[in-house]
Amino acid sequence: MHTRKIPLAEDVDLKAIARSTPGLAGADLANIVNEAALLAARRNHKKVSDRDFDDAKDKVMLGTERRSLVMTEEERKTTAYHEAGHALVGWLLPGSDPVTKVTIIPRGRALGVTSFAPQEERHNHSKRQLEDRLGFMMGGRAAELLVFEMLTTGAVGDLEQATNIARNMVTRYGMSDKLGPLTFGKKEEMVFLGRELATHKDYSEQTAVLIDQEVREIVEKANDKAMELLRANTDKLHLLANTLLERETIDGDEMDRVLRGEKLEPITRDPGPSADVMPPQAAAQADEVQQLDAFGHPTPRPAGA
Amino acid sequence: MHTRKIPLAEDVDLKAIARSTPGLAGADLANIVNEAALLAARRNHKKVSDRDFDDAKDKVMLGTERRSLVMTEEERKTTAYHEAGHALVGWLLPGSDPVTKVTIIPRGRALGVTSFAPQEERHNHSKRQLEDRLGFMMGGRAAELLVFEMLTTGAVGDLEQATNIARNMVTRYGMSDKLGPLTFGKKEEMVFLGRELATHKDYSEQTAVLIDQEVREIVEKANDKAMELLRANTDKLHLLANTLLERETIDGDEMDRVLRGEKLEPITRDPGPSADVMPPQAAAQADEVQQLDAFGHPTPRPAGA
Amino acid sequence: MHTRKIPLAEDVDLKAIARSTPGLAGADLANIVNEAALLAARRNHKKVSDRDFDDAKDKVMLGTERRSLVMTEEERKTTAYHEAGHALVGWLLPGSDPVTKVTIIPRGRALGVTSFAPQEERHNHSKRQLEDRLGFMMGGRAAELLVFEMLTTGAVGDLEQATNIARNMVTRYGMSDKLGPLTFGKKEEMVFLGRELATHKDYSEQTAVLIDQEVREIVEKANDKAMELLRANTDKLHLLANTLLERETIDGDEMDRVLRGEKLEPITRDPGPSADVMPPQAAAQADEVQQLDAFGHPTPRPAGA
Amino acid sequence: MHTRKIPLAEDVDLKAIARSTPGLAGADLANIVNEAALLAARRNHKKVSDRDFDDAKDKVMLGTERRSLVMTEEERKTTAYHEAGHALVGWLLPGSDPVTKVTIIPRGRALGVTSFAPQEERHNHSKRQLEDRLGFMMGGRAAELLVFEMLTTGAVGDLEQATNIARNMVTRYGMSDKLGPLTFGKKEEMVFLGRELATHKDYSEQTAVLIDQEVREIVEKANDKAMELLRANTDKLHLLANTLLERETIDGDEMDRVLRGEKLEPITRDPGPSADVMPPQAAAQADEVQQLDAFGHPTPRPAGA
Amino acid sequence: MHTRKIPLAEDVDLKAIARSTPGLAGADLANIVNEAALLAARRNHKKVSDRDFDDAKDKVMLGTERRSLVMTEEERKTTAYHEAGHALVGWLLPGSDPVTKVTIIPRGRALGVTSFAPQEERHNHSKRQLEDRLGFMMGGRAAELLVFEMLTTGAVGDLEQATNIARNMVTRYGMSDKLGPLTFGKKEEMVFLGRELATHKDYSEQTAVLIDQEVREIVEKANDKAMELLRANTDKLHLLANTLLERETIDGDEMDRVLRGEKLEPITRDPGPSADVMPPQAAAQADEVQQLDAFGHPTPRPAGA
Amino acid sequence: MHTRKIPLAEDVDLKAIARSTPGLAGADLANIVNEAALLAARRNHKKVSDRDFDDAKDKVMLGTERRSLVMTEEERKTTAYHEAGHALVGWLLPGSDPVTKVTIIPRGRALGVTSFAPQEERHNHSKRQLEDRLGFMMGGRAAELLVFEMLTTGAVGDLEQATNIARNMVTRYGMSDKLGPLTFGKKEEMVFLGRELATHKDYSEQTAVLIDQEVREIVEKANDKAMELLRANTDKLHLLANTLLERETIDGDEMDRVLRGEKLEPITRDPGPSADVMPPQAAAQADEVQQLDAFGHPTPRPAGA
Repeated sequence: MHTRKIPLAEDVDLKAIARSTPGLAGADLANIVNEAALLAARRNHKKVSDRDFDDAKDKVMLGTERRSLVMTEEERKTTAYHEAGHALVGWLLPGSDPVTKVTIIPRGRALGVTSFAPQEERHNHSKRQLEDRLGFMMGGRAAELLVFEMLTTGAVGDLEQATNIARNMVTRYGMSDKLGPLTFGKKEEMVFLGRELATHKDYSEQTAVLIDQEVREIVEKANDKAMELLRANTDKLHLLANTLLERETIDGDEMDRVLRGEKLEPITRDPGPSADVMPPQAAAQADEVQQLDAFGHPTPRPAGA
Repeated sequence: MHTRKIPLAEDVDLKAIARSTPGLAGADLANIVNEAALLAARRNHKKVSDRDFDDAKDKVMLGTERRSLVMTEEERKTTAYHEAGHALVGWLLPGSDPVTKVTIIPRGRALGVTSFAPQEERHNHSKRQLEDRLGFMMGGRAAELLVFEMLTTGAVGDLEQATNIARNMVTRYGMSDKLGPLTFGKKEEMVFLGRELATHKDYSEQTAVLIDQEVREIVEKANDKAMELLRANTDKLHLLANTLLERETIDGDEMDRVLRGEKLEPITRDPGPSADVMPPQAAAQADEVQQLDAFGHPTPRPAGA
Repeated sequence: MHTRKIPLAEDVDLKAIARSTPGLAGADLANIVNEAALLAARRNHKKVSDRDFDDAKDKVMLGTERRSLVMTEEERKTTAYHEAGHALVGWLLPGSDPVTKVTIIPRGRALGVTSFAPQEERHNHSKRQLEDRLGFMMGGRAAELLVFEMLTTGAVGDLEQATNIARNMVTRYGMSDKLGPLTFGKKEEMVFLGRELATHKDYSEQTAVLIDQEVREIVEKANDKAMELLRANTDKLHLLANTLLERETIDGDEMDRVLRGEKLEPITRDPGPSADVMPPQAAAQADEVQQLDAFGHPTPRPAGA
Repeated sequence: MHTRKIPLAEDVDLKAIARSTPGLAGADLANIVNEAALLAARRNHKKVSDRDFDDAKDKVMLGTERRSLVMTEEERKTTAYHEAGHALVGWLLPGSDPVTKVTIIPRGRALGVTSFAPQEERHNHSKRQLEDRLGFMMGGRAAELLVFEMLTTGAVGDLEQATNIARNMVTRYGMSDKLGPLTFGKKEEMVFLGRELATHKDYSEQTAVLIDQEVREIVEKANDKAMELLRANTDKLHLLANTLLERETIDGDEMDRVLRGEKLEPITRDPGPSADVMPPQAAAQADEVQQLDAFGHPTPRPAGA
Repeated sequence: MHTRKIPLAEDVDLKAIARSTPGLAGADLANIVNEAALLAARRNHKKVSDRDFDDAKDKVMLGTERRSLVMTEEERKTTAYHEAGHALVGWLLPGSDPVTKVTIIPRGRALGVTSFAPQEERHNHSKRQLEDRLGFMMGGRAAELLVFEMLTTGAVGDLEQATNIARNMVTRYGMSDKLGPLTFGKKEEMVFLGRELATHKDYSEQTAVLIDQEVREIVEKANDKAMELLRANTDKLHLLANTLLERETIDGDEMDRVLRGEKLEPITRDPGPSADVMPPQAAAQADEVQQLDAFGHPTPRPAGA
Repeated sequence: MHTRKIPLAEDVDLKAIARSTPGLAGADLANIVNEAALLAARRNHKKVSDRDFDDAKDKVMLGTERRSLVMTEEERKTTAYHEAGHALVGWLLPGSDPVTKVTIIPRGRALGVTSFAPQEERHNHSKRQLEDRLGFMMGGRAAELLVFEMLTTGAVGDLEQATNIARNMVTRYGMSDKLGPLTFGKKEEMVFLGRELATHKDYSEQTAVLIDQEVREIVEKANDKAMELLRANTDKLHLLANTLLERETIDGDEMDRVLRGEKLEPITRDPGPSADVMPPQAAAQADEVQQLDAFGHPTPRPAGA
């Protein structure tokens, strides 16, 4: 474990932290511990608190917060509805992992983030769970379409992830009746995550057509589900988006209470790592923002959207 | 032979061990012998026993046992039915090699393993044997579908292996009447196991369509067979799965007796290599678990499923 | 920031400069500051003025001005109408970013340039904005066709950019109903900007046909829009083109006033960096002009057309 | 010549040996001579006899004999009928080269071998000769199918060779009326033997379909011919297979006599190179046996099947 | 400039020379200057004359003259009509650049050359100009067909260039109504000039069919135009070809006068660089003539045909 | 020139030699001169005679004579008719280059050779000449088919060359009306001779189908022509083949006389370079004969068949 020389506060549950970051490489875990110690030092804490770990985890997994990034009011609003869309669909679908945080503070290349953490490390996913995950992914775009009647470039990361999941359902998990319980294409070194140079497409064009149809149907169905859920809960969507515009960040509990009609207490959050705010140019450099690609939720490996 | 300097117990039948690991490279055999010696030392045995060899073989071929991996009760149950499905279909099909062990103790990246060992080293396989092997492969997924009415990502390894075997039947062994006694595609350096960089698809799209159809029909037929057998033997499936949930691991004899209606004596197994249990994070690192891919029976080269 | 050792004039608004160059890499920004300082020195300014920064930015982003390049009168006229076409369509479309400069002084490999600068750094683009951007891109070719009833090789850069944007709308941003909210093709290292060696086309021919149809429809629609707008505003097109032929360069304010019917005051521009005019041969060498490709607006990364 | 320092027995006809190994590279020839000398020494012969050369040739061309390889009785029987099928079809077809040896002693990766040697070095092959060669190739699989009504993986090598020959007939030798007297595909460095990395398929899909059809028809016709001949000569097939099961190896003369109804004298063969028998594991390592691929007649370059 | 140390004759107009060689790299320009100085020295000129520059330019751009190459009388005649065909079609089409020289003295691998020089450096080309350029390219083959009713291998270079131009019109310049104002295929490093290793064909087969049809229609139309013009001006074609057979080389003015019916004065040309005539074998070596490819106008980069 | 230090006999016409070897690289020419000098020395000539040059040229261009290669009488006869077929069709077709030698003495990998030498170096080939060349190429196979009603593998080299020429006629020389005056496919470094690694097929499948059809029609037409000519001149074919079987080698004049009905004087040829006859095995090694490919006329670059 990477925490030996750092005194931990009593409330820190290392196991819970490790469990909430399944899929992270060892280097990333070490990174989180280091960041937490740095934050604790900067905040003059004597021990590393749960809060320090939490912020460190976000920084490592989602990129540095960029509070100073100037967004237009329009962009802020779009972002709030986009994230609220993700969060609300996730809240409504039984198979979704519980949302842990929704924020419209830009991080890395994303204008907003909705994180969820599986309660327990799951090793196996049912078709139903994947379908609900897809609904959650499509929720952001659906909210924008519903409220502003507008499609934006911001959903590119969601669409990519959703397409990949749907493709895996069809070509690797045997979850399409039209294609049957077979696998298609070479998986060698994670073919469908795009790492390999030369691929071996080992099926016919006719099969490729079937795969395309099924992948599309799965994504469209998830999109329709998300649209339908948001349309039936527009009031909740507005409520959540407005809360985000007001408070910028809410955690899972707060979201739960808002959606159940409770009022949240006024916030007195400390600004956190806003001390290392970068001037816009530098930030632009650091993150290599590309105009057309921005807003493209890089959705950190397992937990963002 | 790699055992010269290690005193062997009298019950060790080296020939039997070698025979039960056909297809293993020399380095793997040496590895097994070393692991067996280490285990014997750790267990304070004076001689390397058959049991030490057995555990060593499992470790090398299936990965380290991960007893401490926290599975949800639901996952444990799914795994038990999955493995029971493999084992039962194998038990029912005449052409299957006899099952030697069924376990729901996670190993490497697999949540459970069903091993079988060919009684004698076979050099030639009939179409019938391959079809029964395919039925065995599909048994896990079929059991999940039958009992939980649910498809999961866990069958990915089974589907991949089954697809490969069916493809070889059609394109290399001339076992499809629709394609005839010809071979298709370049085999150079095991083309169909995906090792080579550039492949030469030396047939037309029309032929590719035929191959896809035949491969699919073979896999679907095996899947239907497995479903049918399990449906006709649901009581045996429940019996076997429950035994697994109770005992975690059973060997071939025990399985035989359970399925024939006998009662097993209470277990007093020593925990074996559970001494080198890893904390979940470390295990996650070591095995590079990827959330979506877990449960993906890596099915060791010739003997697991 | 790169300006510390250089005294700035009071009118210089560094933030505005940085904001007007979104998407530039750090090296480019440093380059602009250096060029501005050099220009200020050559012009015997004591401080670096806003004007110096402006010229420096153009040089870095659009290439060196090539005032001495001999164009035929016919080419000058074609260029004027081409740029006027871009600028006028941009002026007429609500979703376009405001034009900041239109010039028919050759720069780098372009015979003329129309720059626009987003008022604020945008991180997200709506479908509408992209459609208006496409209209702007097609404006140059449309003007040539309308006035001279002639297609030229000069629009090659515009067509390429427009095709890329339309392709991204269809394959990455989910903006085509026919293809749905999915992504198509591997994006790895900016696939659609053509940097990667080996690509993975992960969809069927049938889908490729749909993509081609949609990309074409989007570009054609933008082209029709541009034609229609210019046809309805031919008087404004002539006015703008003639102003360009007279003054060579106008900025956004001047364009605005011309198009609103105002008269511009006579110009007394200083010749700027025309001191480093190159002899035609040398220029030809330096820029590696290729006869057939000339006029091919290399349209600097985010701001030219 | 490689035999200078080795005293030869009087019966050795070096020319005949060289003639019986057409297509062998110089290194292989040298290898045979060396092996013959070694065998002569081990057998305490004073001169290298014809028999030594013969065994040496087999070892170099077919791999080491593996007498100790444990085959099941079923596999031995399958192998005997497989080889008897090759040999009998070859004996019956006028265009076949005469069989020189049939054996069910495993060699290298093959469970059995049927060798033939062209009486004279042929430089040119007629369509008829190639068709008869194809019949000979299909004889093994046909016999298994006829006697056991079973297809096995063991014919993979035969199918591959037959497919290659048929493909060459169509694409290189102009022997298909449907494709005409043209060549198809690049031959550069033996394209159709699979050595090159990048291939140039220089014909259309329509042509590829025709090629596939013709190749298949040629192989199927040869298969039908083999089936038909064996069906009409089942008694001879049983006779030959039983002789093999009894004697393990017979030469061309013996086969001839058996098939003509003569009785063979009892054998008193010396065990030959069985001294360097390997234990099964080591053999498995040395030959990298892969369970599914075994029995895959590697058919040595020009003379085995 | 590369001429500083070389005294120039008064008649030398360096700007005109540079202008007549657009698209040449700096190294080529330096080469021309060096060759001119060498020629001047060999000819015992005290200053480098315009004539020296002219010959030097031809040598660098078209290859060494090969006066000694033995052509059959038939080949000489074919060549004369081929070049006359180019020149006459160019003379008749308004959009063509003026012809500057027509010659049937072999140069490099070409048996004859027709050069043209754009009066001014053009940066933009209209569709009409490209169509006339295509007519000019097809003129040589058309003349051969018209006069000798014979197609020869000599037009290969013309056909290649014409195909490339037509393809660019369709895929890069948006000049085909059937394909619309889009670009097709990756241009990266001059894709259509064949320099890159791996290409990205980013469109469907259906689009590929359309492109093929349009490219063909454009080339065929140009071919028809050339045939038609030559058929209507057969007398001029004979006149020009005969003048070439008589004088071997004529410049643009001479051609103009001949075609307008004037008589040319008898020639007293100095043999020029014929001093370095090579014996046929050496020439064959130097130029790596390949029998089937000869006559294949390598048409120097921008100016030959 | 490579002959300076070697005294030449008076009858040697160096120009004629050079002219008869168009397309040879300089290294090959030097090689011929060296071989001629060696032969002259071995034959105890004081000067290098025309005969020495002739034999040297054959050795360099066609490979070493292999008089000792043992052919069956059947193969000798097949070869004689094959070469007689080439020679007779060439003699009958007006566009063919005159045959200079016909031989059934094996050379390199060929069992026989028919050489022709263009009277003058040709730089341009008409469609008619290429068609006659194709007829000549098909003559060998046609003769075998006509006389023996048998197709053999020996024509593989002829078919390959014919296919290449026909393909070039269609895709490079614009000689097919169905494809028009365009080029197809990238030529870069002799694409159609198969030297390059990665090729760019720049046309659609539809075009590929047309190309295949045309190439086939051209080759089939040439084949029909050859069949027809031989059928109408069977007596001449027998005469020529029998002369070859008797004399092994005849030159162009002898062939001419035989075909015109004259009787040849009895031969007293000196055995030439038969001194360096190789034993069959060594020859097999040296030439890497491959059983199936033998007889595959390697047809030396420009002059054999």
